[in-house]
Parts: sequence; C-alpha cells; structure tokens
Amino acid sequence: MKTSKFYISTLREAPAEAVIASHKLMLRAGITRKLGNGLYTYLPLGLRSLYKLEQIIREEWNNTAEALEFKPTVIVPGDIWKESGRWETMGAQMLKAKNRGEQDMVVSPTAEEAFTVIVRDGLSSYKQLPVNLYQINTKYRDEIRPRYGVMRGREFIMADGYTMNADDESLDESYKLYEKAYFRIFKRLGLKIIPVRADSGAMGGSGSEEFMVESPIGDDTLIICPNEKCGFAANVEKAWCASDDSVNKKGEKPSKTDLPVEMVATPNVFSIEDMEKFFDESPKMFIKALIYRVINSSLDMTGANGADKWKRVKDPAGDYYPLSYVCVLIRADLDVNEAKLAATLKASEVVLAEAEEVLEYAGAPHGFVGPITAKCPLVVDYSVVKDGEAQMHNAIAGSGKDGYHITHVEPLRDFVPYINADVRTVKEGDKCPLCGKTFYTRKGNELGHIFKLGHKYTKSMHVTFLAKDGKPAEPTMGCYGIGVDRTLASIIEKNNDEKGIIWPMSVAPFQVCIVPIKYNGAMKEVADTIYEKLTKAGIEVLLDDRDERPGVKFADMELIGIPLRITVGDKNLPNVEFKPRSAAEAELVPAESAAEKAIQFVKDELAKLQA
Amino acid sequence: MKTSKFYISTLREAPAEAVIASHKLMLRAGITRKLGNGLYTYLPLGLRSLYKLEQIIREEWNNTAEALEFKPTVIVPGDIWKESGRWETMGAQMLKAKNRGEQDMVVSPTAEEAFTVIVRDGLSSYKQLPVNLYQINTKYRDEIRPRYGVMRGREFIMADGYTMNADDESLDESYKLYEKAYFRIFKRLGLKIIPVRADSGAMGGSGSEEFMVESPIGDDTLIICPNEKCGFAANVEKAWCASDDSVNKKGEKPSKTDLPVEMVATPNVFSIEDMEKFFDESPKMFIKALIYRVINSSLDMTGANGADKWKRVKDPAGDYYPLSYVCVLIRADLDVNEAKLAATLKASEVVLAEAEEVLEYAGAPHGFVGPITAKCPLVVDYSVVKDGEAQMHNAIAGSGKDGYHITHVEPLRDFVPYINADVRTVKEGDKCPLCGKTFYTRKGNELGHIFKLGHKYTKSMHVTFLAKDGKPAEPTMGCYGIGVDRTLASIIEKNNDEKGIIWPMSVAPFQVCIVPIKYNGAMKEVADTIYEKLTKAGIEVLLDDRDERPGVKFADMELIGIPLRITVGDKNLPNVEFKPRSAAEAELVPAESAAEKAIQFVKDELAKLQA
Repeated sequence: MKTSKFYISTLREAPAEAVIASHKLMLRAGITRKLGNGLYTYLPLGLRSLYKLEQIIREEWNNTAEALEFKPTVIVPGDIWKESGRWETMGAQMLKAKNRGEQDMVVSPTAEEAFTVIVRDGLSSYKQLPVNLYQINTKYRDEIRPRYGVMRGREFIMADGYTMNADDESLDESYKLYEKAYFRIFKRLGLKIIPVRADSGAMGGSGSEEFMVESPIGDDTLIICPNEKCGFAANVEKAWCASDDSVNKKGEKPSKTDLPVEMVATPNVFSIEDMEKFFDESPKMFIKALIYRVINSSLDMTGANGADKWKRVKDPAGDYYPLSYVCVLIRADLDVNEAKLAATLKASEVVLAEAEEVLEYAGAPHGFVGPITAKCPLVVDYSVVKDGEAQMHNAIAGSGKDGYHITHVEPLRDFVPYINADVRTVKEGDKCPLCGKTFYTRKGNELGHIFKLGHKYTKSMHVTFLAKDGKPAEPTMGCYGIGVDRTLASIIEKNNDEKGIIWPMSVAPFQVCIVPIKYNGAMKEVADTIYEKLTKAGIEVLLDDRDERPGVKFADMELIGIPLRITVGDKNLPNVEFKPRSAAEAELVPAESAAEKAIQFVKDELAKLQA
Repeated sequence: MKTSKFYISTLREAPAEAVIASHKLMLRAGITRKLGNGLYTYLPLGLRSLYKLEQIIREEWNNTAEALEFKPTVIVPGDIWKESGRWETMGAQMLKAKNRGEQDMVVSPTAEEAFTVIVRDGLSSYKQLPVNLYQINTKYRDEIRPRYGVMRGREFIMADGYTMNADDESLDESYKLYEKAYFRIFKRLGLKIIPVRADSGAMGGSGSEEFMVESPIGDDTLIICPNEKCGFAANVEKAWCASDDSVNKKGEKPSKTDLPVEMVATPNVFSIEDMEKFFDESPKMFIKALIYRVINSSLDMTGANGADKWKRVKDPAGDYYPLSYVCVLIRADLDVNEAKLAATLKASEVVLAEAEEVLEYAGAPHGFVGPITAKCPLVVDYSVVKDGEAQMHNAIAGSGKDGYHITHVEPLRDFVPYINADVRTVKEGDKCPLCGKTFYTRKGNELGHIFKLGHKYTKSMHVTFLAKDGKPAEPTMGCYGIGVDRTLASIIEKNNDEKGIIWPMSVAPFQVCIVPIKYNGAMKEVADTIYEKLTKAGIEVLLDDRDERPGVKFADMELIGIPLRITVGDKNLPNVEFKPRSAAEAELVPAESAAEKAIQFVKDELAKLQA
C-alpha cells in the first residue's frame, strides 16, 4: 500500500477530552474518530489492527476453545429478555426501542438470551451437547459516563462465546478450553495478563475468572500476592485474606468476659476516632454496626430465626418477606465491601442507609447503631464471628440509644448472626490466605471474563434435553467474553512513547514502512524494489510516497507506530536506514539486503509473540 | 472439520411461513434461524458462506474499486440525520431510541451521514480527495412487512461504499471503478445480473445503476429489450420507451380540428370502457385526467404561469406555494407511473386523490375531471404533448362537470402544460427507445445499486475544501451498496433442486464432503486418508463421522449443498464414489486418486467463476 492511496489522517494534538495515552494516540494516529458520545468510528488504519486482533481471537477460539462462530442479530426482540428476567435487571444500560409494530426491541448488550433461544429450539438429546458458539459482534451499553475513548465506549465490539453443556463435568472441560485460549490470545498480543479467579465459594459453586491488565485508569482494584509461586490475585470485589486477630491497644488478644453488657454515656462520641480517644482503646476492640438497604435480594426471611424482633417488609404481592435491610457488624478497623455484601445477600445492590432509615431500623442514629438492638437481621463479618467462634471478646459497640455505647460485649452471647460471612474489604497490607505474604494492590482493567453460568438461563428460559438416562434434564451453561476495542486500546496503553504508538508485530496495521526522503530518482527506484520484494513475501508494507518533508513523514510513521522503518535517503545510498520503532538508533544496511533483513525481523518479532 | 464437531441443524420441513425456495432452504439446511420478525441469526454453517461472500466483496472493493474499509458505529446520533434533513424523510423505516441522556439515537439504515461527518472533519485540501471508504456492517430498516427470510429482513448486512470527490470527473472515475467491481463480484458468485441504468435525464444529471437478478418474487419490474446488442434494461419506475401515435379506431392518425370544444351529455359514462362504447372510438383518442396529491415536493408554484386559476395552498410558514395537487393528463390507453411522476415533481410520494379531493381540485368527480377546468397545475404526459407539439388531436376528455364530457379537444389550444414530462408506465409490448424492438418484462430483485449523489449531503452538511484554484469548493459524492444477505439468498434461489442447495464453489460452506457409510474399519481409514490429503491441500472438507444411516447423511449433505461428495462404502472399495452435487450420477474412482481428483474439481469449479 502506498500512502497516497491510503487514508492517513493524523493530528498534531489530541482533543482536550482525551486524557489517557491510548485515547490520545488513537485519535492522533487516525485509528478512530469520535462520532458521538461513546461512539467511535474505526478509520482504515485502525480497522487493520482491529481485524488482526479479531482474527487472533477467532483462531484461538476455533482451534483452542473448539468453538464455532455464529452471528445473532444486533437488534433482538425485548421478549427474550423478558423471558430470562433481565429486561428489568439490566436497567438503563440497555438501549431499547419500539419498532413500528410497537414491539420492544433491544440493541444487544450481551447475548446469553439469544444463544439460549437459538440452541433451545433445536435441542432434544444429550448427543447434541455440548454446543459451543461464539460471535465477534457489535454490542451497546448505555454507559452513564463514557470515557477514555474506546476503553469505555457505548458501542463496542465484544467477542462472546457461550457453551451449553449436559453436566458440570462437560462445563468444566469447556471452561478449561476457553481458559487456555485466553492465555494464548493475550500472549500473542504481548499483553501481560493478571488472571483473577473468583472465590468459588462466593459464586455459589460455579467458577469465574477475570483477565485483567494493570492500568492506572483501571476500574477495578486488584489484590495481588507478591509470591509468584503462590500467584493469588483477586478483584477486591471478591478478594479474601488470612484472618488477623482482634487485639487491644497493647497488642494482646482479649479474653472472654463474664461481665454483663454495660451502658456507657458517650456524649460527643460519633466516630471511631472519637471512640479511640474516649475509651483509650484500639479500634480492633470495637464492633462497627452499619445499616444497609438491600435491593432485589433473592433471600427470604419469612419465619427466619429471631425474625419476631425485626422490622420486616412484605413484598408487594404479600407472599414473603424479602431481605430489605440488614445490620452489618464488622471489626471497626475494617471496611465493608459492598460488592461482597451484595453477593452474600444475593442482591443486585446494597446501599448504605440514609439517616431516617438508620433511625427506623436501628432505633438510634448512625454512630450508635447496636448489635443487640438492631431491628433487622445481623450480617456478621468473619472478623467478629467465624466458624461458630467469637473472634472478638469484651468488645465495645453502639447501644442502640443516642449518646450511649455498650462495653463487655460478647458475640454469640449477646447477639447471634443471621448470616455469618466474609464481607470485609481486603487492602494492601492484608495477608494472602494461601501463603501468608503481604498483599499489594493495583488498579486493573478487565479485558476478558469467563464464567460458569450454571442453570440461570436454562431454568428461566425452560431449556431441556433428554439425558443419557432417558430422563429430561436442564443443561448448564458457560459464557466467555473479551472486550475487543478495550483490548486494542490496552495494547496501545502499554506500548507507546512520546512519539506515538509502538505496535506489537501481531496487530500492527502495517508490519514495515518504507520512507524515501524524496520519492524520485534513485531513492524511488530503491524504495520500489524493496517494496516489491516485501510485498511478494507477504509482508504488509506502507510506502510513504507523499511529497512531504522527511520530518513530517517520520513523525507520521512513528505516531502510527509501524514496527520497522526503512529509510531511503540519497546520502546513505547504496545503504538504507533500518530502524525498528522500539530501537533508539537506526542501523545502516545495504539496500540490496534490506528486504531479507526486514522479512527476518518480522518473522522474529512474530515468533516472540508465539503462544 | 468433522460433523461430530460441527453444528449441523437440519430440518425435515421448513416452517409454513417460508414460501420461497431460499427461505425454506436456509431454514432447513441450518444456515439461519429466526430470532424475531425480520431478524435472522446465522448458524455456523451459514456464516461460512456469508464470510466468503463478504470476502469476495472486500477483495473486489479493495482491489478493483480501490476503496478502503472503515467501520462507523451501528448506533449513530440522531443529530447527524437532522443535519442532513433525513431525520424526517426516512420516516418509520428508521429504528430510533433515546439514550439515557434523552438524546436521539438511530440504528443505521445506511451511512451517508456518518461518512460525510467523518470525512468532513479532516478535509481541507483537494490533495486529500478522492476519499473512497466502505464498510460491510449491520444495518436496520424497520420494514412494514418483513418477508422471504433474509431476502427482506429488518436487520441486514450491507456492503456500503462512499466516495467524496473534488469534481464530476473524479466522481465518474470512482463510479466506473465500482461498476467494474460489481460485475466482477457477481461473476465470482455465478449470478447472472441485469444491470439497469437509470435515465440520466430523470436523475437530474447524475447517474445511477441497479444490479438486478431475475426473480419471480422480485419487488421490481424490469423492462428489457430482447436485442442483446442493444442491451437496454430499465426499472419500470424509471423506464421510458419509443413513443407511439394516437390513432382512432380505424387506425388513422387524427388531424387537428378547428371545431371548438363541445359539451356532450354522457349519462352513466364513468370508465374508459363506457367512453369507448358511448363515443364508439378508441381510447387512444381520449385524454385521461387524474388528480394526484403531491407529498414533500421541492417544486414551488408561487407566481407560476396560470397560477391565478389554480387552488393553491401556502406552506405552514406562509413563505411559498409548494406543489400540493396536480392534474395529470395522459392518453387513456396508458397508465401513469407514480414513481416517475414523483421523480418529475421532485416529491417524496404522490397519492391518487380521494373523492373529496378530486371534487375540490377538479370541480367534478373522478371520470369527469377535465383538462380545461382543473384547479391545479397540469402535468401533461408526452403521449399528449411532446417537444411543444400536440400528440393528440380532436380528442375527447372530461368536462369538469358531472355527467358531461367534451369533444374536439386540442392540446396547446385548449390547455397548456404546467409541466410536460414522460410519466407513462412502460409495459411489455412497448418499443425500445434505442432499437425499436418490443420489450418484455421480468420481475427483478435489486442486489446492488451505485449512485451519483452529487452535492446533496455536502451541501446540507456544509462540507468544503480548498480546490486547486485556491477557492473553497463543495465536494461531490457517490454511494455504492450491496445487500449481502439478499445476495446470499439469491444465490440459493438460483441454485437448488428438490434435494436442497447446490452451492457455487466460491461461497460453498465446505468445498468437499466425505461420507463413509460407516465410520469404522477400512472405510474409516480410507475416509481419514482422503480427509488428511484434502485438508493439507487447503481444501475445506466436512467429514461426516456421525453414527447415522447413510440415507440420513446423504440427505443432509445434499440439503446443505456441498459441491462435491466422496462416498466411502466397503462394497466399492478400493474405489470410492465421486459425486458432484449438480451431477445426476456418481462415478467410481480409485480411493488413492480421489483426493487429487477432488482438488482438481475444486480448482476447475473456482476457475469457472473467475472474474
């Protein structure tokens, strides 16, 4: 390809709204152009890299994950989302439209429903399972605040695979094939991936793994064990750690007390710091109690133990008491992780209660909420009670009365958990539950996610098949996603310098560029000869034949990030300059061997990225 | 690929709603599955053919049309449609949604606006032109009545190219490159295409060409000249023909009369047939007058000649008199073509007036509408007046009074055209305007369309560049589309028999299938050997290793339409059966040379489709 026939559209400056390197560089190099808020067009240069990335995913999913590509529509009927129950729960993320027949339509944000419907219709026997299909297709999520270019856009390309399996064993196999494919894909892209496994306990028996890249603008916080042999890494929303003891200010473990709970007037004591001063004690001796509102929990507290002393709210149909508020107890030096709490309560969300709600469900304002007097179920963190044992003794807590605290509190004597679970936020400095080393944290961006869905969709959407034993059974499912645009942006985020992008060979839009200082005379002849040789060898070459100053051409090629530049200048002939984009200096090589050397360079660079 | 690892999903019967061959076969063979009204998923088998088709388009557009692929988003802001003025005119075809910020969004039905915006932002100089970009991407049009499967779906894949050119000469060049690419594409697909050129006169100086396939379920009627040297073919919506004379019942051309117009009472004469009986004369002597309502015409009749005697309706802003009704005069044996009439009036649509409107704008009911008394502008067909000459004399027409007709009517003496144009419907039996041969007609389906847009978008969307002469200029544009799904369906429509599809080699999902009668013993060994050889040679093979009866396997492979089947049965060993899908009989060939013969077969079949 010659530059004069290509669509090069570089910018000296990125628009002010671009704050991260990949966003700036994608705009400056002419990879993408903004068409609207969160909507980015790929220009021809960008599409070349995007297609290479898609092709790598396709090859690995075809060959390693043993999946088959299919293509559901982008616009799907709202009915299938109503069938699965996600019409409501996906909320405003989903772009909805009415067609001319006033039927609800959805711009697909993901495709579990479509996959389930398509496979369900033709499924009768276990012989047809597993079904393992994927697409690489347009998705849309109406992000509240699209930002960072394609890193968090509204329309995006997702590679999404789905398996329907006869049983857990088969799902395990599919899951492992995909896991292997993911590692190969990211290897071929030159991306250092942090695989983050979820606590299978918290996931209700199923498994899940996120593939993250470290990134200062990451949406996720990762908890990482420094011990490479151990390899523990987790999303803070799911991380757990080794337990550490409750100790008093002298560092001693408190012992169990026989003293009864005692009311202590604590005027002007509101915060944990106030308590530390007032009681002259470590926060590790205090029990913090917090009221949370629970949204869409599937747990039912009808007739639950102790329910008579709780405020309960019937669901609108009057059928049962869903969990609507909880009082969380945790050691006062720790924080509650709301994602872990929501997962524990099988809720879509938990929200810290407002002042009025606190009064209603605790009988006292925030700061004085008490474990004994709470009017909603107690969710007790492992820092307070674990495995049926109190982890704190002779503790101090809120009294449930404004202006008072209580001392000599004994968990399990003075209160019992409704739910006992791990809901603490794991932090830098906490210890690895596997090897005991001290965690560090990093911000991370999720590029991929594999997930055992279990029976969620096959149950709600009534999928059955005749199992080997001749009885009807419900298949189990897995889903596997990669954010394609985001992965491309992450590659740029990791591979750039002040001049521009430094593409890894596997996804470079062109593998080699040839820049004649002037495209005429001997320089043209040499440039054309190298161009022909490389093209014939199947190398993707861009020959910059524009009538521009050499500085302009160099700057464009460096900004665009082509991995190798061959410069043809009459001063150097019969030699040419050979400059890998990542090298500081150019090397002079004879023009006649430049093509061979370039072919070898491309081959070597690709070999480094072999999976 | 082995069948056991592939997703084969054939049906014995197609659903009742499928009435055409391609729709039935796409469902039966497991190429597509319906996900909603006008929404079809491609299963893995179908996607293989679809991708091959896309790749042929891509290659020809890259290499022959010299275009570059880009990728706008599928969801685009409504604002760009408002800018071009098509937000309103596209009407209910466009699927619209409000995003969470209450901004209007559109699921792209086409991409002139997106292309224009993207190129506009980076355009400054003539040196950057032409820009020639295309995409192969999801589109959505909210068809009133989706039918025939993907032939007329709501979501579809369109290959759509756009050029922005500095001047008409450059646009001509781009247009011709695409035209050439189209012929090559359809040749490679084995489709016999009827290229239909539009009357460049009617298009206002720009050009357009439709690429049609003959089809009994086609939406379009094609007027075709049987003279292959002539090659005239036109869409009935744009076709014109040689003029034929007005003659009386004796076959004589009437001569001009000096008699004045005479009122004749014609009780119970309503139709042309009634007139024939009453006047004992040929319809070629009658002038038919029809009142049409004109929608969104850009013609203005403010102060037009004769406007004082017409009913005129001001536009809501009170600025001018748009054309709102017209009275069309045409020889009574001919029909008005509404598409041609709308194009003549630069209107989005024309609608035959209702009884009340006729009374208001003609002063008489339908059947008595008169050329002299009409209260709206006269649009006179070439059959009545042409090139300033009356084509009819001493004619009979409506009087504008209920129950009366007028005789001795002389066009140009008794009335003058406001617009004189060709608005007749050309029919089978009319004569070719180029060579005089008698037309025949066929139903056709439009697969592609190339179109010179001119300044429509660059004007409304304010695109300018600095021309060679240093002055700002407005670029001109072309657009080029192919309906990808519809083309795939058309290939099936043309290539099938009672057993199923007969794929042309260029888009077959697999090129060869191997069917062992039983996949064990010597049969397995022979089948595997041929499979290995073919795979190594880059042939796409499907080996049917299922434990099914041979009849089931044959039926599936024939339904799926793989161009060549090699059957391995122990009765025939050491020979195998070699059966092209399109051949009536199988041939026995030695197993050891079967692979070579198959490779040659694939090569030969592809060569036949070489462009």
